[in-house]
Amino acid sequence: MARERQARRREGHEIEFGRIVAFSDGVFSVAITLLVLKLGISDQLTHGEVANALWEQREKLLAYTISFAVIGRFWVVHHSFFAEVKAFDGRLMSLNLFSLGWVVLIPFSSEVLGEYASSTAAVVLYAVNLAGVVLIGQWMSWDARQAGLTTIDAETQWENMAHALFIAAVFLLSVGVAFVDPHIAPYVWLLLFVEGRSHLVERLSRRRSS
Amino acid sequence: MARERQARRREGHEIEFGRIVAFSDGVFSVAITLLVLKLGISDQLTHGEVANALWEQREKLLAYTISFAVIGRFWVVHHSFFAEVKAFDGRLMSLNLFSLGWVVLIPFSSEVLGEYASSTAAVVLYAVNLAGVVLIGQWMSWDARQAGLTTIDAETQWENMAHALFIAAVFLLSVGVAFVDPHIAPYVWLLLFVEGRSHLVERLSRRRSS
Amino acid sequence: MARERQARRREGHEIEFGRIVAFSDGVFSVAITLLVLKLGISDQLTHGEVANALWEQREKLLAYTISFAVIGRFWVVHHSFFAEVKAFDGRLMSLNLFSLGWVVLIPFSSEVLGEYASSTAAVVLYAVNLAGVVLIGQWMSWDARQAGLTTIDAETQWENMAHALFIAAVFLLSVGVAFVDPHIAPYVWLLLFVEGRSHLVERLSRRRSS
Amino acid sequence: MARERQARRREGHEIEFGRIVAFSDGVFSVAITLLVLKLGISDQLTHGEVANALWEQREKLLAYTISFAVIGRFWVVHHSFFAEVKAFDGRLMSLNLFSLGWVVLIPFSSEVLGEYASSTAAVVLYAVNLAGVVLIGQWMSWDARQAGLTTIDAETQWENMAHALFIAAVFLLSVGVAFVDPHIAPYVWLLLFVEGRSHLVERLSRRRSS
Repeated sequence: MARERQARRREGHEIEFGRIVAFSDGVFSVAITLLVLKLGISDQLTHGEVANALWEQREKLLAYTISFAVIGRFWVVHHSFFAEVKAFDGRLMSLNLFSLGWVVLIPFSSEVLGEYASSTAAVVLYAVNLAGVVLIGQWMSWDARQAGLTTIDAETQWENMAHALFIAAVFLLSVGVAFVDPHIAPYVWLLLFVEGRSHLVERLSRRRSS
Repeated sequence: MARERQARRREGHEIEFGRIVAFSDGVFSVAITLLVLKLGISDQLTHGEVANALWEQREKLLAYTISFAVIGRFWVVHHSFFAEVKAFDGRLMSLNLFSLGWVVLIPFSSEVLGEYASSTAAVVLYAVNLAGVVLIGQWMSWDARQAGLTTIDAETQWENMAHALFIAAVFLLSVGVAFVDPHIAPYVWLLLFVEGRSHLVERLSRRRSS
Repeated sequence: MARERQARRREGHEIEFGRIVAFSDGVFSVAITLLVLKLGISDQLTHGEVANALWEQREKLLAYTISFAVIGRFWVVHHSFFAEVKAFDGRLMSLNLFSLGWVVLIPFSSEVLGEYASSTAAVVLYAVNLAGVVLIGQWMSWDARQAGLTTIDAETQWENMAHALFIAAVFLLSVGVAFVDPHIAPYVWLLLFVEGRSHLVERLSRRRSS
Repeated sequence: MARERQARRREGHEIEFGRIVAFSDGVFSVAITLLVLKLGISDQLTHGEVANALWEQREKLLAYTISFAVIGRFWVVHHSFFAEVKAFDGRLMSLNLFSLGWVVLIPFSSEVLGEYASSTAAVVLYAVNLAGVVLIGQWMSWDARQAGLTTIDAETQWENMAHALFIAAVFLLSVGVAFVDPHIAPYVWLLLFVEGRSHLVERLSRRRSS
């Protein structure tokens, strides 16, 4: 877009900048806490059946654990990104909202995956949802840098983008695999751990720390 | 009302002013996240039925998307307005609460619309709800300016009011149309995009940016 | 209690003080937004039945409106009180939590009242809940002043207490009336409006404003 | 782990530090408020049955009260801990998230305990959940001190750890007892009150207060 973008500096608009992250933190914290609503057992059981009913929640508990970690991870990435943001405009706020709209879907995708872990549709939904969050986040990051809103240097930006594309590619690969055999698809996600991106965040924070 | 209004300045009461926007942000973020609770599929399906069950959620997903965008948009407007607020009093807090009370109804209106998109009652409920948010927001904005709580200049105030009345008029027009044919009513809302108000926000932020 | 109380000043512990009000704001905003979850219509209706189903929600919508106003009012009082708090200790945090515990019950009491408006038990539950919030809030306020945590002067403190006791007395009176005839009890609450306490908040803010 | 840790100071990164506690406060406040969703009565009752239905909620109301106090207590401990945190890194954020993941489970454990108070499985679930929160909190505290992120002195750290281990031991003891007789297990928890740890928090705040 050719329109001239009018940004406000973080300094001098602390409360306005603070509201963007506060609203985002609110959305993240509600979304991550709503995950627990998917857990629950019938209230019609005898005492002897309770242990069994809890045991049958183990897949849902696994889905809870993974999705809590995933949303928590996205929050950390969001936190890292906004630590670099020095000015904001309406476009950044819109992209941030767009990104949050995908984060809020995770409790739903996670619930479906927790119920139907070996269904192609459930795996595809979950993978597309997570890939969407990663790609939109990268879009927001790229756009903000182009507009001069962040202080991220070119090298770090490229590294971040390479990582985001890798992650999205893994998820999209798992979508392809899910159409062949949904049982195998989750194993594709293990590629995410093989690669490891934590050193990047470290490097970024090293450069920024005083 | 003739009563003398006692306002506190934003400076010197940062925490108190901050609480008003923090509480508002909390309400917006919970309301926008609760939208996802309306999505969900039965847990009694075979694996083959999952894709179909998800497909049948498409109307609800559309309602989710629209309502997320709508609440997000209202949040941006709220953010823009309070960026201009330099002092606050009990009346501003009351009008803000009144406005939030209508925002919180959106997940309910949205759910009804998602279920019964071609019902007159559902369209009317949704349109009245959104028109209410817009009009009360304008009332709050007007009242705050009269009391000297904001720094919005007269021209911008008039432009904002003209836009708010236009938006409310579109929604109320759609209510009339819905009584004739509820299928057509949502198309009336397209008028909102034709008009476009983003340039206004731009202009406002240009004037304020340092 | 004879124990020596160790308070921290608001200045120098802004983040810690801020967390107390931020946590409180979070609880208030979630509680007030959860009220909307009580609204909802069946998803098994024909289009012709939607208007009727919405109309049958009118008692719940009234309960929503009243409880939104009530929680909003309690938030305003909480906001006014903490604007006077200059230091905090563990006891203030405990009393604040105790008070929030009663606020969070309001969505439940409100739901019961919305369903069974003319049942003695529902009226008693609601009245006791609201009286509890008011009395605990007054306890917190009194205790904080005794410990030198607030800057409220003696006269204002006494006026506040008189008002709180009046409000609590009205609710407890309505409990008594509810045992005779639950249909009349809500009318007792009209006494609250007769008395009117808004001028007090005004006076308080007048004294504090710069 | 041998990796060099790159921490950012609280000063100069106020917004970033603030987001960590704001996100935590959001999670705590949503989790504590969700407890009320477990309360509720049928909407098919006659007016005469309402009192009875409310009376039958007494076990759930007790579970609500206890869990509200428990989560509130954990929030106070979290608040005390972060008041001592002077710098943060990715590891502290991860441990904080891990700790929050256990806090968010409390509404679920609490609901199960409220339904099946005399079931071994329910008691074990609740005790393990609370012991987990305490132990992970202590791990976070210990790790942060080793990395020089907090200003807690060695003596206080040891005292805190001794208390945390005591609390965890009580919960784990109650797990053992629950396998013998679940009715007795909750009485084991009374040991927590016998010991009393409030003086510690006092001492800590005394040392820190100006």
